[in-house]
Amino acid sequence: MTGPRHTAPKFTGLVTALPATVPFVGPEELQRKRGAPFRARLGANENVFGPSPRAVEAMRQEAAEIWKYADASHDDLKEALAADAGVAPDNIVIGEGIDGLLGYAVRLMVEPGVAVVTSDGAYPTFNYHVAGYGGALHKVPYSDDHEDLPALIARAGEVSARIVYLANPDNPMGTCLPGAEIAAALDTLPEGCTLFLDEAYIEFAPEGTAPDIAPDDPRVIRFRTFSKGYGMAGARVGYALGQPEVIRSFDKIRNHFGMNRMAVAGALAAIRDPDWLRSVQGWVRDSKQEITAIAQENGLSVVPSATNFVAVDCGADGVFARRVLAALAEDGVFVRMPFVAPQDRCIRISAGRAEDMAILRDALPKALEKARQG
Amino acid sequence: MTGPRHTAPKFTGLVTALPATVPFVGPEELQRKRGAPFRARLGANENVFGPSPRAVEAMRQEAAEIWKYADASHDDLKEALAADAGVAPDNIVIGEGIDGLLGYAVRLMVEPGVAVVTSDGAYPTFNYHVAGYGGALHKVPYSDDHEDLPALIARAGEVSARIVYLANPDNPMGTCLPGAEIAAALDTLPEGCTLFLDEAYIEFAPEGTAPDIAPDDPRVIRFRTFSKGYGMAGARVGYALGQPEVIRSFDKIRNHFGMNRMAVAGALAAIRDPDWLRSVQGWVRDSKQEITAIAQENGLSVVPSATNFVAVDCGADGVFARRVLAALAEDGVFVRMPFVAPQDRCIRISAGRAEDMAILRDALPKALEKARQG
Repeated sequence: MTGPRHTAPKFTGLVTALPATVPFVGPEELQRKRGAPFRARLGANENVFGPSPRAVEAMRQEAAEIWKYADASHDDLKEALAADAGVAPDNIVIGEGIDGLLGYAVRLMVEPGVAVVTSDGAYPTFNYHVAGYGGALHKVPYSDDHEDLPALIARAGEVSARIVYLANPDNPMGTCLPGAEIAAALDTLPEGCTLFLDEAYIEFAPEGTAPDIAPDDPRVIRFRTFSKGYGMAGARVGYALGQPEVIRSFDKIRNHFGMNRMAVAGALAAIRDPDWLRSVQGWVRDSKQEITAIAQENGLSVVPSATNFVAVDCGADGVFARRVLAALAEDGVFVRMPFVAPQDRCIRISAGRAEDMAILRDALPKALEKARQG
Repeated sequence: MTGPRHTAPKFTGLVTALPATVPFVGPEELQRKRGAPFRARLGANENVFGPSPRAVEAMRQEAAEIWKYADASHDDLKEALAADAGVAPDNIVIGEGIDGLLGYAVRLMVEPGVAVVTSDGAYPTFNYHVAGYGGALHKVPYSDDHEDLPALIARAGEVSARIVYLANPDNPMGTCLPGAEIAAALDTLPEGCTLFLDEAYIEFAPEGTAPDIAPDDPRVIRFRTFSKGYGMAGARVGYALGQPEVIRSFDKIRNHFGMNRMAVAGALAAIRDPDWLRSVQGWVRDSKQEITAIAQENGLSVVPSATNFVAVDCGADGVFARRVLAALAEDGVFVRMPFVAPQDRCIRISAGRAEDMAILRDALPKALEKARQG
């Protein structure tokens, strides 16, 4: 076509200033770049043991009903989750994974210039949302591979932060704080500052990791998911727990018809099969012991893990760990690693099946050898 | 617990000012209120004929892979859609239904005070998003039950709007404008104003309804979905078509891992089964003729429809139509109706199966009788 060049859309100032970066590059895209599939997929913090067979069956059944929109209020799932968590249904909002819910929660509180505090090297999708709504991110270093809650709260006071983000257990290090420390720390939160407590990995953590917090406490929003313990990352079902008034505020902005009908049916079946969850917890524990053993066979140590992955300390700096990671990828083993020093001395390996562990046991010494050669 | 009352979170000024209303009350919630299921579900503009059996099978297969996140770049689906639409993959972004994509697109362009133009009585979820980002909505009346594109564009000029929203075919009236009129109207759009062209129902519209617009034209973003023609409303798969630079901007803000893996697999299988779509188009055409016949048997007229639903003119005002709607609901028939006069003289009935039509044929005269008694 000839003619005048048409004018471009007018984006907001905020959008114009945003970088075009994405929080993560997915394994499929990495596979396309390397031109071959991975032999072991141990990098995306997925749970290879998958969901309860009853959840799979429920999703398959529901496929025939896919012509209908899902129930926008998700009453059945909220009731089941409320019973499980010992709260009321109006303490719960369902959303498109924790990623989606973090986006909504950030949107509720962040506008240009609002201060937000997180750990340097913590979950980047939270940072992505804060930047996306114009927030000012303040980062606090890890302390001994743990998120440093007193320092996070102190920083929140200094910068008058509206949100402190804490993942407990933490990703990418896999460490956790005792729930009692978090519950006690709430009283030290600055006024008007809300704790975003990301409990994505809580099903893998030791007893006592989930703090005992009253359901009507307005100072905390907890985020949970069916992606990790329940093995349904591809379904996109998360939920947030909080004070009913805070939870209702999500209804002002959320995509009310955003949930997939099969996913909701699967989540409901999954929460009703606690035996499967216990089996998965056992398999994950065993696999983490094997990752630890493989690391030790290669002279490496690991960071104690309260999640379904293990941060393996490659024994040097981030440059070296990145070389190990690249060599593993070249050999068909997909893992990821922390972004920030000194945590980036580690690579992060998800629990896997026996066949995944066999591949790792074969690949790790070769990758280390290659990395040492530079 | 006793102790001090904890302070509430600090919401943004925008969120604080937002009403707690939701765009729609879903049929499940209406069923809970009435204490019984509907006999016929003809109100949510769903496609009761459902997706291709191949799509159902693809979703069932993919249920076993649900432990993995979906490919965040959706390359396979984008390639298939690009081939289908005669564009390139980088003209396409995939999202959580048109509702989700409208949310992203509004967020790209709307900040407090930005003017936006739509038709008075058009799709409320678009309005919900505009209000949610602080935009100022300007509404133009329908003209003879059609969206009035020249008036929409004239108003956009008057208020310096950044977006004009047009659904073609329209919801809730089911009317459409010829594609050539829309293509020609682009040259009259004010500078810096983008047309949001919602083509949710395009698969049901006559040849020539989709305008011929160059894929690199930055003045339009088109929105399409697998919810209507492809019968997958509960899957939440929509896509937007536009200039590559505009499409890339969605990557700055979208939930990159927001898509359900089964849904993406189902959409891919659906787009590869054009025979099923043709069958559905035939069944919908037949059912719309039957709705028209039922209306005429009751002395009512219908608005000509280019969608999978029919606006039945109840022959009086909105008060009367609301009575008809309530009487139908009481009798187990779920339909909806336009919000605004004079379009609210109609009730909106989706195409259905023979059994749905039998229920409608039984229920409509009784509902009219009841409504006439006041």
